[in-house]
Amino acid sequence: MSNKGLLIVLSGPSGSGKDTIIEKIFSINKNIEKSVSMTTRKARNNEVDKRDYIFVSEKDFKEIISSNGMLEYTQYCGNYYGTLKRSVDKLMEDGKDVILKIDVNGAKQIKEKCSDSVSIFILPPSIEALSSRLVKRSTETDESLKRRLERAKQEIESSYIYDYVVINDNVDNCVRDICNIINAEKLKSDRMKNIISGVLSQCKNHQ
Amino acid sequence: MSNKGLLIVLSGPSGSGKDTIIEKIFSINKNIEKSVSMTTRKARNNEVDKRDYIFVSEKDFKEIISSNGMLEYTQYCGNYYGTLKRSVDKLMEDGKDVILKIDVNGAKQIKEKCSDSVSIFILPPSIEALSSRLVKRSTETDESLKRRLERAKQEIESSYIYDYVVINDNVDNCVRDICNIINAEKLKSDRMKNIISGVLSQCKNHQ
Repeated sequence: MSNKGLLIVLSGPSGSGKDTIIEKIFSINKNIEKSVSMTTRKARNNEVDKRDYIFVSEKDFKEIISSNGMLEYTQYCGNYYGTLKRSVDKLMEDGKDVILKIDVNGAKQIKEKCSDSVSIFILPPSIEALSSRLVKRSTETDESLKRRLERAKQEIESSYIYDYVVINDNVDNCVRDICNIINAEKLKSDRMKNIISGVLSQCKNHQ
Repeated sequence: MSNKGLLIVLSGPSGSGKDTIIEKIFSINKNIEKSVSMTTRKARNNEVDKRDYIFVSEKDFKEIISSNGMLEYTQYCGNYYGTLKRSVDKLMEDGKDVILKIDVNGAKQIKEKCSDSVSIFILPPSIEALSSRLVKRSTETDESLKRRLERAKQEIESSYIYDYVVINDNVDNCVRDICNIINAEKLKSDRMKNIISGVLSQCKNHQ
């Protein structure tokens, strides 16, 4: 069990910097893998299938739901987003820590199914900072920007259900905080059982 | 509440390196204070009253117990060891994180009284390493060495009750791990409530 990877749930409003943060975490922690989410939404110009998302039809997505193949899934702006159970299980069994970039609804589903998972909410330093980041991304219409900010407020109100809340006022500090959390979680006594048992067995031999 | 300090319980067998670790933590984290324990045992030659321990008579110690002035206390090798409640409360109210270097019995009492405290057990890399450290300290008779090793085995068996277990095979790595734990604990969502509320109040003003 102690060699099994950690399941890390990362959430935050659109524009909170999740993708940048995750890329930086990968660059300094080679034992972490991102579970690529599945979605029915159209790919943006810069997005690559199976790298950014697994893009599938709504028909295919619903078939996986009905066969219990989704660890979590949600609907957002008319599209489905979800995490394939088998791909996450495979990575964790291989000892890899897995980061899931999912929304609040998904985080709730994961906490119910995987009580051993670690959930982290990325909090923007201010609502103004979040708004300006979304505008900079310039993939938003005024209507979708308004909708995303409204959604952001609701998500921040749900941040209390997460294990940890990290402020992204500085990306490097935010990444350092998340790496701190991951390192600390691995030192939880229930994850150190095998090592404790090892020292105790020496004690017995020493008697 | 968010400005109140963290109560950190640090335990480990005699010879596990607690004192060296604590001194190094102080040198890199200026917001941490050590609560000096009170004891009825005789001071060693290198020990200074009120720096290493508050040395008192058994009569005085028992009076403080009866007046509920002890956060925790225990008896070990015929002597009393304890933590004065008022001195810990004062430090935490001033926003200082407080490290208590106490034994397993004390840790259990703290966990009951302060559910918000963080407990860390220092695990020696091996029982041989622990034994050689005690011999090097050369303050031990053969009898007390035998007694301390027996006690160490019992303490390691109790390490499961701690929140975290850190191996002291390398002091700097061990100190880094403990600082990681402290930083991560401060990011727990219930300790971030005030900051979350601050961003949410901006959201309301933004509506």
